[in-house]
This record gives sequence, structure tokens and C-alpha cells, in this order.
Amino acid sequence: MSAPDSSKLSLNTATVREKWNLAQAIEGCARHGIRGISPWRDQVAELGLNKAVSLVKSHGLAVTGLCRGGFFTARDWRDDNRRAIEEAHALGAQCLVLVVGGLIPGSKDLPGSREKVKEGIAAILPEARKAGVPLAIEPLHPMQAADRACVNTLKQALDICDALGDGIGVAVDAYHVWWDPELEAQVARAGKKRILAYHICDWLVPTRDLLNDRGMMGDGVIDLPRIRGMVEGAGYAGFHEVEIFSKLDWWQRDPDTVLSTCKDRHARMT
Amino acid sequence: MSAPDSSKLSLNTATVREKWNLAQAIEGCARHGIRGISPWRDQVAELGLNKAVSLVKSHGLAVTGLCRGGFFTARDWRDDNRRAIEEAHALGAQCLVLVVGGLIPGSKDLPGSREKVKEGIAAILPEARKAGVPLAIEPLHPMQAADRACVNTLKQALDICDALGDGIGVAVDAYHVWWDPELEAQVARAGKKRILAYHICDWLVPTRDLLNDRGMMGDGVIDLPRIRGMVEGAGYAGFHEVEIFSKLDWWQRDPDTVLSTCKDRHARMT
Repeated sequence: MSAPDSSKLSLNTATVREKWNLAQAIEGCARHGIRGISPWRDQVAELGLNKAVSLVKSHGLAVTGLCRGGFFTARDWRDDNRRAIEEAHALGAQCLVLVVGGLIPGSKDLPGSREKVKEGIAAILPEARKAGVPLAIEPLHPMQAADRACVNTLKQALDICDALGDGIGVAVDAYHVWWDPELEAQVARAGKKRILAYHICDWLVPTRDLLNDRGMMGDGVIDLPRIRGMVEGAGYAGFHEVEIFSKLDWWQRDPDTVLSTCKDRHARMT
Repeated sequence: MSAPDSSKLSLNTATVREKWNLAQAIEGCARHGIRGISPWRDQVAELGLNKAVSLVKSHGLAVTGLCRGGFFTARDWRDDNRRAIEEAHALGAQCLVLVVGGLIPGSKDLPGSREKVKEGIAAILPEARKAGVPLAIEPLHPMQAADRACVNTLKQALDICDALGDGIGVAVDAYHVWWDPELEAQVARAGKKRILAYHICDWLVPTRDLLNDRGMMGDGVIDLPRIRGMVEGAGYAGFHEVEIFSKLDWWQRDPDTVLSTCKDRHARMT
């Protein structure tokens, strides 16, 4: 593998959210020469959507995704996803990331919850198409099947895409899919058309928390160059978005150090 | 689903290992009318193999599995698995459970590690056949791919079985496979011939530890009657082995209470 193109680095703001608000993250990216950003909706709301749009624009950043729509098993999914699509449109986001939701609350019905997710995505897709916002289903690691996303493999996500047609694809997050024996085949199946985002970080051994113990690229066991090879081999030429939930480590550090480290590791370890 | 047959309950000794040694667990099972037991090899060694064999026999217990062989990515895998097969034979165990091992130490080569596992299983299978000890590959949850088992789905395990022929099958542990979108199809594929053991416990929400926070049947979100339906529908008529690693809860409790609870929950919640 040749080294990755440094202009493809993007920052998912979750990586620094404990210390920086969205305005600070935007300025930080610009200061470090990071060209892409992927904000979370609560941070956009805090800053104000118009202000967020203008700051992103004035700093010349690409919005590589908006986090997040989804949670189709929750009560208010319809209105919430409608607003998410509008915000993604306003920000010019390359996709709206869908974390689809886990089991229907109070239920153990996994097949039923998966069906509800599929119906929810089908229901919002026309509005997303009209707004020109591609929907990116993000399969989450099976350890989050109960509480965050019952779509847990690329195959599942792509089956939904194939059933629904255009305007929808996947976010491939190395952390969630690296273990999958079908990874290579499913990334190839996804192809340029369906891969809307590529997220990176690393799997730590041991992992001390199911949600918030992700590692910096190079500190764990994921063969990131191999996965980038698959994704680029499938035709994806977009950003590489760093998304690190790390309560015990990176969230405690100075965000400028975090961003320098992301740049260095992206260049050397991915 | 009709209620499960109470004579099918088996105790994996990990469930009470913090408070009971193997002799106590054997006596506890007999006292509670639990007819099957699945011991761990360190406990067998502590008690002495001959003593373990005679205690199991004198209490009339079925040994529903021996935990464990495997770890084919470790250095001493060959001798260790040879000994495990001998012990399983001496105990009359219905299978030797294989926890196959994670990544080759120091490596990020997941496909290579998986290949090494397959070669290791192929290498010990003739000895297992000669000893009359069926090998049960246990696919572990993907969250344990790096450090404990790089076989993470039933499909992977069954592909290995199909490549290797007779004398090998799978241990279906509801905790490890409940999330799998292919579960129903792969359990059916496995059939009576390949399903050598069925393990139960529950997935807690939230799960506070990747290894040792399993729940008692009924306390989590796994639809256990549905999975038993699949397994029995495929022709499996063996034991239902309770295996609960629970540092924060069940390991702290009086083992007699744990066993009563297992019996009650097995009858009502699985």
C-alpha cells in the first residue's frame, strides 16, 4: 500500500468533543490543515445551524458526514430524521450517517426490530433524495446490536440498499467491521456507488468499555492499510474520517495534540 | 415453544468457579438434580483427573463438554490440545470445546490467523477421532476476535467442519451468536450432526465488561426460546449448558442460590 493522501483526512468531532465545541473544532481543523469535518447534531444545534454552515464554509471544509440520523426503533424517529435531513442539506454534508437503533424498547424481537429499521429507512429515503442528501447506513459492531444498531454487518446494510435503490449506501467504519469474515467480499460488492464514508480508529486489546474505548490508529490490532486497500480497490476516493470515542485516553488530552497525532498516524499507520 | 426438558440442564462450572472447586460443583449439581456438568481443565487438574472421573461417575453426571482445547495461535498449542483430548476421553466428555485463539501474537493478520486455526484443528482432528472425542468449535462473539477466538460466526465454524469431515462440529452459545443475521440458516445447516453443545446465558444492557458481564437467563435481551427452537428444530436433543461469566454479580453469590436460579430460569425463560 502506498501512503494515504493527507488531503483526505477528516475529523469526526466526537474525537475531541469533551474539550472543543463545534466552532473550536472547525478552527482546529483549519489550523492543522485538516480538510474535512463530520459534526454531531447536538453540537450543530448548540452553535446554531446557520452559524455552523457559515463557519464550515468560511474555513473551506468539506462536511464528510452529519452524525446522525437513525434510531428507527425509537418513538420520535420520523420527525427527528426529517430534521436531520434538513440539517445535512443545509451543511452540504456528503451523507447523513444512520445509526439505525437497537431492539425495539422492551422487546427481544431482533428480526422484528430489523424489519422496523428497514421500513423506517424506506420511509425517509424519498425526503433524503429530494434534499440531495445520501443516506449512509453504518453497520455497528455486534456488541452494540441491542442498544444502538441492529444492523451489524455490511451484508445486512447492503441488502437493505439493494432493496431500496438509489440515494442510499453505507458508512464503512473499520472499528465496526474489521472482524467480519465477509468484509472483503462485501466491500467489493458495495463498490464506489454504495461506499459513502470511510471511518477509522483502532481496536485496543484489551478493550475496557464497549462504547468509549477506541484507540488511535496504530495503537490497536486493525490492519488499517489492508482495509483502506479494499475500500479504495472498490473505487472509493473520498475522505478518511477519524472517529475516536475514548473516555479514558484521547478525550482527556489537549485537542491540538490529538489532531497532530491523527495527522501523523493517518500518514504512517493507515 | 413448550418448556424445556429440565433433565437437559447442565452446569458449566465457570458459572460458580469463584466459590466452588470442581468437587463442590459436582456435589452441588447432584444435590440440585442437575444432570450434566462441563468442567474447565484447570479445575480438573487441581482435583486430579482420576478423582474427577470417579466423582463424576459416582454422581451419575453426564460430562456435556470439557473446556477447553484450542488457542491454535499460541506457541504450545499442539501438546496442550493432545492433553486436552486425553482428558476429555478419560472424562467421557461429549465434546472437547475449542476456543480457537485470536490473532497470532504480535500480528494484525486476521486472515492468516484464521488459516493457522484451521490448520491446527486439522492437525489434532485425527487424534481426537482415535480417542472418540468430538471436537466442538465454539464461535465467539466478534468482540473477542483479537484475543480469544478469530472464528466469530457459525458460518465460519461450519465451513471449517465441512472442509474437515467427521468428528467435528460446533458449540452453539446463545451469547456469542444471538446477534447473527445468518443464525437461523446456519443452525439449520449445522443440523443434528454438527451441533455438539448448546450453551445459554443472557446479554445484559448495558454490558459493562467484554468478558465477565454475562447475565442469567431472563435478565437480558436474548430471545432464548427462539434460539432453542432453532437448535431443537435442527435435530439437537442434547443438554442446555448454563455458562455465566459474571464477576460483578453471579460470581459473588452463594452457589446454591445460583444453581436454584439456573433451574428456575431454565424452566421459565429459555
